[in-house]
Amino acid sequence: MLRAGIINVTGYAGVELARILARHPEAEISTVTGRSSAGKNLGEIFPHLSELDLTITEDLAESVDVLFSALPHAAGAKKLTSMLDDGVKVIDMSADFRLKNSSEYKEWYGIDHPCPEYLDEAVYGLTELNRNMVSSARLVANPGCYPTASILALAPAIQAGIVKPDIVVDAKSGVSGAGRGKYPFADTNENLMAYSVTGHRHMPEIKQELNKLDDSVDLNITFLTHLVPMNRGLLASCYAPINDEKVSGSDINSQISTIYEDFYGKEPFVEISDFPPMTKNTLGTNNCMILPVVDLRSKRLIVVSCIDNLIKGAAGQAIQNMNLMFGLPEDMGLNGLALYP
Amino acid sequence: MLRAGIINVTGYAGVELARILARHPEAEISTVTGRSSAGKNLGEIFPHLSELDLTITEDLAESVDVLFSALPHAAGAKKLTSMLDDGVKVIDMSADFRLKNSSEYKEWYGIDHPCPEYLDEAVYGLTELNRNMVSSARLVANPGCYPTASILALAPAIQAGIVKPDIVVDAKSGVSGAGRGKYPFADTNENLMAYSVTGHRHMPEIKQELNKLDDSVDLNITFLTHLVPMNRGLLASCYAPINDEKVSGSDINSQISTIYEDFYGKEPFVEISDFPPMTKNTLGTNNCMILPVVDLRSKRLIVVSCIDNLIKGAAGQAIQNMNLMFGLPEDMGLNGLALYP
Amino acid sequence: MLRAGIINVTGYAGVELARILARHPEAEISTVTGRSSAGKNLGEIFPHLSELDLTITEDLAESVDVLFSALPHAAGAKKLTSMLDDGVKVIDMSADFRLKNSSEYKEWYGIDHPCPEYLDEAVYGLTELNRNMVSSARLVANPGCYPTASILALAPAIQAGIVKPDIVVDAKSGVSGAGRGKYPFADTNENLMAYSVTGHRHMPEIKQELNKLDDSVDLNITFLTHLVPMNRGLLASCYAPINDEKVSGSDINSQISTIYEDFYGKEPFVEISDFPPMTKNTLGTNNCMILPVVDLRSKRLIVVSCIDNLIKGAAGQAIQNMNLMFGLPEDMGLNGLALYP
Amino acid sequence: MLRAGIINVTGYAGVELARILARHPEAEISTVTGRSSAGKNLGEIFPHLSELDLTITEDLAESVDVLFSALPHAAGAKKLTSMLDDGVKVIDMSADFRLKNSSEYKEWYGIDHPCPEYLDEAVYGLTELNRNMVSSARLVANPGCYPTASILALAPAIQAGIVKPDIVVDAKSGVSGAGRGKYPFADTNENLMAYSVTGHRHMPEIKQELNKLDDSVDLNITFLTHLVPMNRGLLASCYAPINDEKVSGSDINSQISTIYEDFYGKEPFVEISDFPPMTKNTLGTNNCMILPVVDLRSKRLIVVSCIDNLIKGAAGQAIQNMNLMFGLPEDMGLNGLALYP
Repeated sequence: MLRAGIINVTGYAGVELARILARHPEAEISTVTGRSSAGKNLGEIFPHLSELDLTITEDLAESVDVLFSALPHAAGAKKLTSMLDDGVKVIDMSADFRLKNSSEYKEWYGIDHPCPEYLDEAVYGLTELNRNMVSSARLVANPGCYPTASILALAPAIQAGIVKPDIVVDAKSGVSGAGRGKYPFADTNENLMAYSVTGHRHMPEIKQELNKLDDSVDLNITFLTHLVPMNRGLLASCYAPINDEKVSGSDINSQISTIYEDFYGKEPFVEISDFPPMTKNTLGTNNCMILPVVDLRSKRLIVVSCIDNLIKGAAGQAIQNMNLMFGLPEDMGLNGLALYP
Repeated sequence: MLRAGIINVTGYAGVELARILARHPEAEISTVTGRSSAGKNLGEIFPHLSELDLTITEDLAESVDVLFSALPHAAGAKKLTSMLDDGVKVIDMSADFRLKNSSEYKEWYGIDHPCPEYLDEAVYGLTELNRNMVSSARLVANPGCYPTASILALAPAIQAGIVKPDIVVDAKSGVSGAGRGKYPFADTNENLMAYSVTGHRHMPEIKQELNKLDDSVDLNITFLTHLVPMNRGLLASCYAPINDEKVSGSDINSQISTIYEDFYGKEPFVEISDFPPMTKNTLGTNNCMILPVVDLRSKRLIVVSCIDNLIKGAAGQAIQNMNLMFGLPEDMGLNGLALYP
Repeated sequence: MLRAGIINVTGYAGVELARILARHPEAEISTVTGRSSAGKNLGEIFPHLSELDLTITEDLAESVDVLFSALPHAAGAKKLTSMLDDGVKVIDMSADFRLKNSSEYKEWYGIDHPCPEYLDEAVYGLTELNRNMVSSARLVANPGCYPTASILALAPAIQAGIVKPDIVVDAKSGVSGAGRGKYPFADTNENLMAYSVTGHRHMPEIKQELNKLDDSVDLNITFLTHLVPMNRGLLASCYAPINDEKVSGSDINSQISTIYEDFYGKEPFVEISDFPPMTKNTLGTNNCMILPVVDLRSKRLIVVSCIDNLIKGAAGQAIQNMNLMFGLPEDMGLNGLALYP
Repeated sequence: MLRAGIINVTGYAGVELARILARHPEAEISTVTGRSSAGKNLGEIFPHLSELDLTITEDLAESVDVLFSALPHAAGAKKLTSMLDDGVKVIDMSADFRLKNSSEYKEWYGIDHPCPEYLDEAVYGLTELNRNMVSSARLVANPGCYPTASILALAPAIQAGIVKPDIVVDAKSGVSGAGRGKYPFADTNENLMAYSVTGHRHMPEIKQELNKLDDSVDLNITFLTHLVPMNRGLLASCYAPINDEKVSGSDINSQISTIYEDFYGKEPFVEISDFPPMTKNTLGTNNCMILPVVDLRSKRLIVVSCIDNLIKGAAGQAIQNMNLMFGLPEDMGLNGLALYP
């Protein structure tokens, strides 16, 4: 059994890691940390996890094979990298190791990168696009929830060159994506808002990873985020003009479907849909559902993609990466069906 | 007192008309019709309207000065136009008289227009843009909820020529916009979806009205709609590339704010916001809040606009139009503050 | 025009007071206070109130005729009573002056009463039961939201003696009743819980006021509160065994309806319903809807009552009391219809 | 592998059966039926079940070992009982075989029982109370969602005689309990209502089963149901006067906790809680959480219990019963942790 540790277990991503790992056939949770809750039993704060009978400690209390960090950016970077030399494999849910360019990190996060010497080694853990590198990685940067849905939506189109690089991503997330406790119920319920209108930190991840698929183009991406009054679920609506040198004609939609299905054909967690996917179709799962469709009047490709932001957008993808890093079947512990309704 | 009639009062737009007219100082509801509910008292179906003590009839039971129709498209057109000759002023909430081009009507609604001879006379009742024509109209086509938010968001930019005509409108609506009874609770709650992905009927309205503001350009609009798990509220996020021959430089945002504020300066129901507006800020009101902001990296203008879909997007705007048509103060009966939270 | 002040305007009850007073024909808001927000414009925090253009100050900035306090218990009592001698009429939304017995106050609130010498003078502002006393009061203790619904539900039955004094009140409230910011969205949405299971502070108010209607019985009340994932709305389900010496027979339900209708016959804000009322029927209004019905099998009276917790349960009732205290029509500023859906 | 059939798979209980059976190690779904959806693939209606690749047929298309019926009452009874003679074990989710007394069935369901000769044989499938009988049953009547939570809450108290038989059960359910499609979103969201105020069909089940635990008392139960704007979750608040001949004194709460813990000590799916349980703690699980607590002032026992109405209140308990009927571990396929938040 793999011994796993979770740093900052008390956030939503942390408890979701604990929930999934608790039923993982080849992993067990050895130690969990938290700051303000140190000393408490995890079940006191989250009764649904009381059977785990884990005490939250300030620091790691046991040695581990794999370490998940659910700390905010910058807070854990140095500690995590110090564990690598002890042979621990690290999956960091924060943004620290996602961007390859440390000046870009500084631009978006406002501070110097705490350990830029690890940026080369870190693998961006969007599993479907970087599977081989994840498999051999010591340090995986788990993608943000928005980038996961957005990159998966656009990757086949970018790689195939069927769109021009003028992209709009209009993304909408349930409230758990904002972290625990940030949005009060009554102000958030029956409300819909855009936020980070002058730029969201997840944009450079999207650009970086899409550029890897076609570095010949200069992607011009407008990325806007919205908060939707629901707990879980993230939907990205992506728009780009069709490149009619690559796809055209009356069967353009089926050409594009084929491109998407070929790109993701064998993926266990990506499904190309032929109807508009809803977030609820992915609730509680590690799945991403994607519908590409051409707006024939405006000659734009629309791609709608859906995930559960806490699973494929956070804890589930982290465990998918763990499975690869330790040679386990990629979907181990992650094969649940969506909870409906 | 104006005597008002409401055809098909039992839909959400109909009951909202009744609610607002019940407190209007210069109007009274004379007669309300419904199909399956004919014979019942309005208060049996909607207890909050029981003080009105109105019996729902199959046909209009009293003569009226102004008639609001909340029927679906095509269902009421001939009846409505026949009333015009009796001196009744008509405000139609359906799509029948919105599009000037009857072949476009056929393309989107799938039937021949029932009375195309009235299309010239009908006035598109987006009050802020067509105030003078509304004032003297006999027949007003009340705009759709999505076009109201989208056109108000984009009009200043189109008229000023500050954007290129490649527009994406990503619109999100609360569930009441879909009409009464269409979406069951448990399937819709905790769910987010795109719909009408191959084209939504509100798009041609948006294009028609924006083109009036600058007929020199060929607007290329992609319009996608989403259903959000809340009762009321509609938010449109609009994207278009900046035309840097018109606006540029480090103060581009303030240039654009000035353009927007000048365009709407004296409007009682439009507010240019300097923070991201939320739908809740407009809940229960006839207001539209608009934030224009440039994404400096991608050189696109983003405009976010919010309304209460049943008020500014339906019943409130209809009464705003009625006020104008009868020489009353435009905001009479419509000056409530938002219900928060 | 009455000059009104609001202490602690930034809570939900405070903003609701501001919203209603802003449209009150005979009152204007002169001054509003807040603690952490002092120095800001009210519209910065609550955009829907920006037209009021009020600056939040730490202390009252203007002299007033009527003062509303939305502070928590004990925080404002001394200050409020000191204003009375300056001729200011005070309506306190806190619990400080609700209980007549200072030792009961200590039992439930855990502290000595800050100014027990005013308990005799203070009038419990459940308007329908204490109208005359409110009219001549200087100091009104505005009832809690739960007691408002519960007492109105049970008062006719207690006064008529048609139930035995073994009462269960199972009350359910929307989240705004808990105050601003206490419950995070994702933990509260899709969740239902009981709370204060060992006793809720609103119970002694209920008992005190019901006992006034029949001091010959020793009321034995079990009162349990629940949090429901919605913004506004409060529903109390009340249960008591029928006293069959007073009502019996096959028309018992109509006998009881008559008792309830006689009790509340002329009240502008209380409606005896003949169907199960829903909180949405009262949304945005100062109304209370009540259904009394006998469970014939178990011989218990069930009374279901509904209010909007922020209006009849807080700000609306406060303004209803203000109207009485200043000789204005009781429903002035409060005659809106419910917002549906 | 057990071959399972699901009759009327397209209701919420039916899809939940399919979801859980799809991951059950010892069962597989052989055939599913539906009425209006016959001929479609299950995945067309419920995309989250598309991997099952099951065609919905009008009648059972394969022979089965176990048959789950999710039809409404009376609709399937004759068909189900006819299968028993073919050696099929039947678990009926409807009310048909729950009440032992056919005249009580007629009183509550308004029709003569379609096959009263099976009432004796049928076992009421509240697993924890009837485990042995379930194990050897051919025909199990799966309990209603409300009775499951209510009976589990009250059983220890009734058996121990610690309460007097004057019971109030105030129960609240999420909307999925009402079946698919009954409640439209906008009318139901932000709304709370009582329903079936003159008597709910689940009451006689509660009385019948509780009476088995102590047939010396005449239980007088008032049972009222409420609809809460959330998808899943059911909470029952139960009230009964303490019998102080059995429990009393300052440690009464710990005496009662002990009685409850002894009663349910080894149950895999019942947890006695020492804090007020929330429905979210049971979301997606087969668990029931119960808090007994005495209101010392009114000398009443309050018991709060929570379940996921579609799992322990329907599909999960049905599979728990199936496991017993076929000698499998009782918790097989049912050991998931709650989805939080």
